[in-house]
Amino acid sequence: MTDCTIGEYLLTRLREVGIRHVFGVPGDYQLEFLDQLEAADGLEWVGNCNELNAAYAADGYARLNGIGAVVTTFGVGELSALNGIAGSYAERVPVVSIVGTPATFVVRERQLVHHTTGDGDFTRAARCAAEYTAGQALLDRDNAGAEIDRLLRLCWLEKRPVYLMLPSDVAGQRIAAPAAPLALPEPSCDQAMLARFAAEARERIRTADSVAILVGPGVDRYRLGPQLLELAEALGCPVATLSSAKGVFPETHDQFAGGYAGALSSPEARAAVEDAECLLAVGCQFTDSVTGGFSQHLDPDRMIELHAVAADIAGTPFAHVCMKDALAVLARAPERTGRGPVTHRRIPSSPEPITGQPLVQDRFWPLVAGFVRPGDVIVADQGTSYFGFAAQPMPRDCAFIGQPLWGSIGYTLPAVLGTMLAAPDRRHVLLIGDGSFQLTVQELATILRLGLNPVIVLVNNDGYTVERCILGEHAAYNEIGAWRYDRLVQAFDPHDRTVTITAGTEDQLAAALDKAAATRDRAVFIEARMGALDAPEPLVRLGKAFARADYHHAPV
Amino acid sequence: MTDCTIGEYLLTRLREVGIRHVFGVPGDYQLEFLDQLEAADGLEWVGNCNELNAAYAADGYARLNGIGAVVTTFGVGELSALNGIAGSYAERVPVVSIVGTPATFVVRERQLVHHTTGDGDFTRAARCAAEYTAGQALLDRDNAGAEIDRLLRLCWLEKRPVYLMLPSDVAGQRIAAPAAPLALPEPSCDQAMLARFAAEARERIRTADSVAILVGPGVDRYRLGPQLLELAEALGCPVATLSSAKGVFPETHDQFAGGYAGALSSPEARAAVEDAECLLAVGCQFTDSVTGGFSQHLDPDRMIELHAVAADIAGTPFAHVCMKDALAVLARAPERTGRGPVTHRRIPSSPEPITGQPLVQDRFWPLVAGFVRPGDVIVADQGTSYFGFAAQPMPRDCAFIGQPLWGSIGYTLPAVLGTMLAAPDRRHVLLIGDGSFQLTVQELATILRLGLNPVIVLVNNDGYTVERCILGEHAAYNEIGAWRYDRLVQAFDPHDRTVTITAGTEDQLAAALDKAAATRDRAVFIEARMGALDAPEPLVRLGKAFARADYHHAPV
Repeated sequence: MTDCTIGEYLLTRLREVGIRHVFGVPGDYQLEFLDQLEAADGLEWVGNCNELNAAYAADGYARLNGIGAVVTTFGVGELSALNGIAGSYAERVPVVSIVGTPATFVVRERQLVHHTTGDGDFTRAARCAAEYTAGQALLDRDNAGAEIDRLLRLCWLEKRPVYLMLPSDVAGQRIAAPAAPLALPEPSCDQAMLARFAAEARERIRTADSVAILVGPGVDRYRLGPQLLELAEALGCPVATLSSAKGVFPETHDQFAGGYAGALSSPEARAAVEDAECLLAVGCQFTDSVTGGFSQHLDPDRMIELHAVAADIAGTPFAHVCMKDALAVLARAPERTGRGPVTHRRIPSSPEPITGQPLVQDRFWPLVAGFVRPGDVIVADQGTSYFGFAAQPMPRDCAFIGQPLWGSIGYTLPAVLGTMLAAPDRRHVLLIGDGSFQLTVQELATILRLGLNPVIVLVNNDGYTVERCILGEHAAYNEIGAWRYDRLVQAFDPHDRTVTITAGTEDQLAAALDKAAATRDRAVFIEARMGALDAPEPLVRLGKAFARADYHHAPV
Repeated sequence: MTDCTIGEYLLTRLREVGIRHVFGVPGDYQLEFLDQLEAADGLEWVGNCNELNAAYAADGYARLNGIGAVVTTFGVGELSALNGIAGSYAERVPVVSIVGTPATFVVRERQLVHHTTGDGDFTRAARCAAEYTAGQALLDRDNAGAEIDRLLRLCWLEKRPVYLMLPSDVAGQRIAAPAAPLALPEPSCDQAMLARFAAEARERIRTADSVAILVGPGVDRYRLGPQLLELAEALGCPVATLSSAKGVFPETHDQFAGGYAGALSSPEARAAVEDAECLLAVGCQFTDSVTGGFSQHLDPDRMIELHAVAADIAGTPFAHVCMKDALAVLARAPERTGRGPVTHRRIPSSPEPITGQPLVQDRFWPLVAGFVRPGDVIVADQGTSYFGFAAQPMPRDCAFIGQPLWGSIGYTLPAVLGTMLAAPDRRHVLLIGDGSFQLTVQELATILRLGLNPVIVLVNNDGYTVERCILGEHAAYNEIGAWRYDRLVQAFDPHDRTVTITAGTEDQLAAALDKAAATRDRAVFIEARMGALDAPEPLVRLGKAFARADYHHAPV
């Protein structure tokens, strides 16, 4: 046991689970903890412009780093961050949310202090947090050691945010803390159930005329990309990915059949998935945005589903069968391999830019895709950027990050701050529309202040085109302010280091991307101008599906 | 009864209660309602850059207009707005929060749609909203008429936000709606209790050697400033105001004794309040930020407290005695008047600017105060701006708006968008620090896009000085990015109509304020540069009190 303060103990544990950067905004109930953070080795404080942005940044960080952390203050700060935390909860991203709360005696005496509702009730915000976190604790001297460890384990195991309330007078209290580093748990697997599952699954795979694998986001969340690849190669079958798992299986692999999005898929990808006599769906969640509005045609009787800690064969559940073990056991001894036609996809090469040709979405995204190189991290905001890029081929070892389930526009700009700090050796490309950009714009200043060098491609098309695809094509409510983005970059970048380029035609875009490719030590900001009503074809079709669901409008 | 859609009915009711502008961000579960809004007479949609800013704007609007409204979308939008709604709840500002939710059948079938947590639970965000709203409803064809009316009445009566969920497929459904306009209720008073209260209160006032009135924010929330003035003049006694009620009693009035903030008050104001043998505290709430950290010395046995729907004499409660009736009954026949020494305060005149003298906070705020003219709306962000200006004299008919209880920094920039739309004929002056400004900066673009002409005074002092006063005087976590604010204004203002001035010395500030005074048809943005560790004296003392409470640090 070692003697340390509770704040120091928490910081030590954060380091041990792999956190190197902590995001947040200072507030007067956590300043002593921030003092401890500044004094701690191996941890860096990243001050954000506001708390929602901080939560988004922690989420982006966690997606590449494995886990992230954000610090806010009681009430005002944590509620501002809540939408970001909720996004992490929905999309299963492990973020440790630490909230500085009023001193113990202030709460006990129900004092009418600032950042409260003035009625002595200090529990409201915690109840909100409980809706979007896997576990919660109010730390004190007696429980701090155990609760911090419990919540960090839970965060890791569930891949969901946890919520720690650290009262202002508790951070500095001393405890006797265990000296051994925190061991992070893995889901525990029921071996008997696994054996039953494996027997039945193998039999189905063996007897099926065609087998295919569909990859969902759960694979990456549990860092099982390599194990998935092993199984795929053992089976030799076609592999498709949901857009929420784009890049988790290498798109340059011979067995890659394409992205699957129900009726919005390519005919090859759709056939590979929907016609397979046995479909292994690994870590999949069939939400509206990744299925073209529930347009998937999947026969449950032909499906084997693997989830983090559960499996299912044709509707029969196998509880406590872990994805990791299931992937391994199925890969170990496939009865037969090479099942199903492996469609050797034509990988479309990037189009030749046409000089003087105004940019349109259907050619814009292929042009951007041609710029991406192996290892890049692509962060795409929900809207034209996400759906436009999701349909493009991607080189090997790239990450594709978006928020297709929670779908909070503006998420990606702060998120890319997080991804860059998590993986500083990779190139990070942010694809974002002007509507989304305006929600969280100030975090660009943090990115530039820290000397980070992303490539930002801003689609300036005068408003919320993703909403125009659903309703209000010409409505004033889908309009936004016309900003001068070049001046904005100058405002945020006092040293004028950022390369800022505007492109309205294909040759201008090509030149801008060439310039970005040649730039290593500066941020590059490309403003691409496109029409307000122009959208990528998949988004146009999805918008119609959403309008049908929401408002019973347009016919199919 | 008239036949209309539920959306139209809601919009009609919003107009009837006095709303002319609706704030928000479009999202795909409320687009049909926004169509209805665009088609409605007498209501204007104000699209904000993000939802927190929209909620802040609706709060600012409601403070001057009496009531406001904000529209967001399910999950992502409403959670982003939650901190703003919570601020309205804490500070008792009536805001109608309308949230577009997924279609009824989508919820019934627990579909895995976007903006949800992907588990079929559509109720999480509503539980969060319930923590910070006075009432909630999920609208459908059967309940819409009754629930809309119930919640608008509640909002008005409680002066707190209410929460209406409008499913995407419900907005367009038709109902038979009452043709009579909505009658807004006033709190109902127990007349027998009022008589008992009046008898005892009058006796105390009659026999006391000295009487004083202390004004709190509840007076303005129930729009009872004129009635308070009447009582004060009937009693002829000194009147002091909490900073949360600054301007509610005219500071130019002979009976005005000054602002009261416990130990941070002027000696005259403190004596008037604390030495009064009978103190009438009207609409007061003694929270830490307005009492110099609970440094008030008020003898409960000498106090008569009036609240919206309750009164109290020396600890004896009088339930259901309304402030309005109590003010009237005490004003009607005072037994004696002129009680207590009316301190004829020396109203300090604004100092003469010294050429070449760098700006310091203790002289800056008096200089700014000299610029304010009768009728101005002063909106001051929590921090140096609020505490700096609160201590200055203010001309007649001015409003002073801040958020001293909830204390969410960044609130005021979007709030001033709301105050300007609510009171377009008044001049609006925003006082804000650079740290606060960065949280919500994009809403400046909305202000400029709409052609509004505030005077913005930005205190650029390199970070969170309000936090430095508490802890971390030299800590990196209290630093923020150094922005070029002039470029930022250019970025948001494509027509270059804003007057932008930087002032580092007193003569530069004086010239800038002169320019602002002479400018009518353009926004004026003054960047005033001051030292990072310089703060107004009241904030320095309050910071020490907060540090003691939070961290048990500095000695008294």
